Amino acid sequence: MSLADRVRHPDFLQRVMSADEAAALIPAGANVGMSGFTGAGYPKAVPMALARRIEALHAQGQPFKIGLWTGASTAPELDGALAKVGGIEMRMPYQSDPACRQRINAGQMQYMDIHLSHMAQFVWFGFLGKLDVAVVEVAGVLPDGRLIPSSSVGNNKTWLDQADKIILEVNDLQNPGLEGMHDIYYGTDRPPHRKPIPMTAPDERIGEPYLRCDLSKVIAVVHTSQSDRNSTFAAPDAVSEQIAGHIIEFMQQEVKLGRLPANLLPLQSGVGNIANAVLAGLNQGPFENLTAYTEVLQDGMLDMLRSGKLASASATALSLSPAALEDFTRNIDFYRQRIVLRPQEISNHPELVRRLGVIAMNAMIEADIYGNVNSTHIMGTSIMNGIGGSGDFARNGYLSFFMTPSVAKGGAISCIVPMASHVDHTEHDVQVIVTEQGLADLRGLSPTQRAELIIDKCAHPDFRPALRDYLERARHSGGGQHTPHLLPEALSWHQRFVETGTMRG
Amino acid sequence: MSLADRVRHPDFLQRVMSADEAAALIPAGANVGMSGFTGAGYPKAVPMALARRIEALHAQGQPFKIGLWTGASTAPELDGALAKVGGIEMRMPYQSDPACRQRINAGQMQYMDIHLSHMAQFVWFGFLGKLDVAVVEVAGVLPDGRLIPSSSVGNNKTWLDQADKIILEVNDLQNPGLEGMHDIYYGTDRPPHRKPIPMTAPDERIGEPYLRCDLSKVIAVVHTSQSDRNSTFAAPDAVSEQIAGHIIEFMQQEVKLGRLPANLLPLQSGVGNIANAVLAGLNQGPFENLTAYTEVLQDGMLDMLRSGKLASASATALSLSPAALEDFTRNIDFYRQRIVLRPQEISNHPELVRRLGVIAMNAMIEADIYGNVNSTHIMGTSIMNGIGGSGDFARNGYLSFFMTPSVAKGGAISCIVPMASHVDHTEHDVQVIVTEQGLADLRGLSPTQRAELIIDKCAHPDFRPALRDYLERARHSGGGQHTPHLLPEALSWHQRFVETGTMRG
Repeated sequence: MSLADRVRHPDFLQRVMSADEAAALIPAGANVGMSGFTGAGYPKAVPMALARRIEALHAQGQPFKIGLWTGASTAPELDGALAKVGGIEMRMPYQSDPACRQRINAGQMQYMDIHLSHMAQFVWFGFLGKLDVAVVEVAGVLPDGRLIPSSSVGNNKTWLDQADKIILEVNDLQNPGLEGMHDIYYGTDRPPHRKPIPMTAPDERIGEPYLRCDLSKVIAVVHTSQSDRNSTFAAPDAVSEQIAGHIIEFMQQEVKLGRLPANLLPLQSGVGNIANAVLAGLNQGPFENLTAYTEVLQDGMLDMLRSGKLASASATALSLSPAALEDFTRNIDFYRQRIVLRPQEISNHPELVRRLGVIAMNAMIEADIYGNVNSTHIMGTSIMNGIGGSGDFARNGYLSFFMTPSVAKGGAISCIVPMASHVDHTEHDVQVIVTEQGLADLRGLSPTQRAELIIDKCAHPDFRPALRDYLERARHSGGGQHTPHLLPEALSWHQRFVETGTMRG
Repeated sequence: MSLADRVRHPDFLQRVMSADEAAALIPAGANVGMSGFTGAGYPKAVPMALARRIEALHAQGQPFKIGLWTGASTAPELDGALAKVGGIEMRMPYQSDPACRQRINAGQMQYMDIHLSHMAQFVWFGFLGKLDVAVVEVAGVLPDGRLIPSSSVGNNKTWLDQADKIILEVNDLQNPGLEGMHDIYYGTDRPPHRKPIPMTAPDERIGEPYLRCDLSKVIAVVHTSQSDRNSTFAAPDAVSEQIAGHIIEFMQQEVKLGRLPANLLPLQSGVGNIANAVLAGLNQGPFENLTAYTEVLQDGMLDMLRSGKLASASATALSLSPAALEDFTRNIDFYRQRIVLRPQEISNHPELVRRLGVIAMNAMIEADIYGNVNSTHIMGTSIMNGIGGSGDFARNGYLSFFMTPSVAKGGAISCIVPMASHVDHTEHDVQVIVTEQGLADLRGLSPTQRAELIIDKCAHPDFRPALRDYLERARHSGGGQHTPHLLPEALSWHQRFVETGTMRG
């Protein structure tokens, strides 16, 4: 396919250059806003070229780093390549790359872990400094200069709007049928000029299908032909299926009690194997005519759209396995009628999440007996990925589930601990905790009532006696009994793991 | 004044009875929704009568407890009286009463600490069980049966709507001039039927000035004549004035940098002496034509309305000193044009707080070096008051300040600690930390960058070396360096205080 089929505006075609030439236009110290959300729609060539340039400069003893902002996680060709050469000074708002993680946890790279709904507006407000360059993958350029978005929207609207200079990657492996699937809302503003966001249903379109782009800022157009990360998820295992089973049983009960409509409320589902298992369970389950208002569409949601269980899905990105991508490509006309891809400030907007009454389902690393949830840190100090959108959905949703297997590392780690080693979701924001052992419905309970329930329902039987013992001794320790703790022991399970490789005593 | 002047509907007058008679209509085990928010507009007679009844029943060996839901804190005649006789099984969503606190921390009473914006909707959703009885203070009853709200609105709309039975207290010491000051929005609904809330300015009226009331549910009308709690605040001390000074200087800088409009954005201010000092500072300060969108109007805001610095104020409750109340009473026509009192699901609504771009200013108990904030717990275990609305405003506001003196208990406690002993506001939600020592602007910083700034700017000089030492050793401990911690030491400052009465080593 010739680039002119994708780039239908002559002035854009005049700015075509190689990735290396484009990367050379990014100055040291720049804040660069790149596209990309959960391994979809990220630029594939310029970051690699920039990494090569940085490596060469570093070899000559010249310092070169950028501030790297994205939608969310990207791929080895972006985060991995730039982290490996030490090219990132500060990373926001979410990452899940092994090389990034290693550098951050080695103290060689800064990372600020931000709610995904906050990122765009903090840039509009000027809170994070100037955005110098946008590097955005698109599926094409219209004759009038508007852009056909790629497989994710993320913060692209904001990057194109706020950056001084724009580099576009036109990826001819992105399906041209994506055109029309996006809904870019241009009604946002800064206070005091904000208006209500006019959406009352998860599938409602309130914007336009294209990204606006100021041609005078476009300094490079790079032609690529490379597929997204397209990670394969593991088939649901027994533990994930048990977690899914508890959630579906609970939802059935809520419907029966009149606390949820028969077709539930819009579903939000985090990424990963447990989430896919829940979706698989819902696809076999009793609910019909469901909707989704979420960040990421992964395989499970495509299955549900195809089966008809899911009537529509709103997200900001796709994150598909190769097999699912094949199906998506083949049936893109079907999916285009049922999927809306939005900017992440809309997909995760507190106003909309609360109005629509989203059911939030997110994985976690650990919860403590009082219902405080750690989504981000290993043993209190090392970042795993980031909070992502879990806070946007958990705080504002109608119902909020946090899910984890009860143990990790072959049973060495209890995911229910006396005190969370880092708190991302406080006791005020956590309604339901689920492990393969069972489900703890924390609504309306005090901390000690929650503790008893979480230990009984969610903790692994191997760890229950020690948790009960902790709670009992904390209650009789002479400290306050609202949230009883033994301060010298509260984090001792984590310390034991650090020292001995297991939390078991 | 005769009760008929206040109760202008004959059927309501027929249900007049004594507080003891009304209290006798509340069954054991009932969930009771009482009015009251920061010591304003709470029922004054029925709770005391109920406490007497409970005491008598307990003396006879008969169990009697209720679930007690309010707007926020109340007064000794309500929380205090019922807690002292052991009459409360479960308390929600906020309390600040010494007797309540003592019982909760002794493990004799349950308390669930809920975001104030969540309470009403959780009741609508049926998440907290059935509301049996509403006990609501009003300033009067209209001839058509609608109610003139009192000095707070809180959750009264929800209690009147959701309860099976209603007991009204008509307090003839509440100023009749309150009529017309309230704005009760009846456009809320449960998902999937929710619509945008049609408000775009903090002083906009979107509802009606009266509470609707189903006469068939009214089982008692009780006549009272008793003033609100009307606590006096201390005059701003040097520490509070220094905190206020840092905030005002920072705001001036933000205006200069174009990150805030010249008249700022709507102010939210927590209750207390520091908050009053900030308001006093703003009243002397350079900003004109300010607005407030907050929970509680305290003395400082009345001063600002009177001086003209504050053009309008929206809240859900008054909380005035006796002197301020006198001024308020004398000039109620002036204040009625400038004050709107709303239900707390509206005053604290995430949708509105984010849209309006509220500047949130809240006190805290402690922050850790990474910017996690504890607003609720003493030494990790004992509840102080509750999170109140601080989470509603901090998460969704344009800017969020958390304020505390750098030390407490005469210098024995550092309010900047290695690890917060309880987390109510996570690192993702805290933008600016202020003590009398200085202000730390955490926007765009990684955890270790935040740590250096918080120690340098906010910690008391006496504690800085130990905090720096902790950070340094944590960085070299072999753990992850994203959020360096020494797990065995992280809570040792709190433990030292518990054991020795001081955090000093």
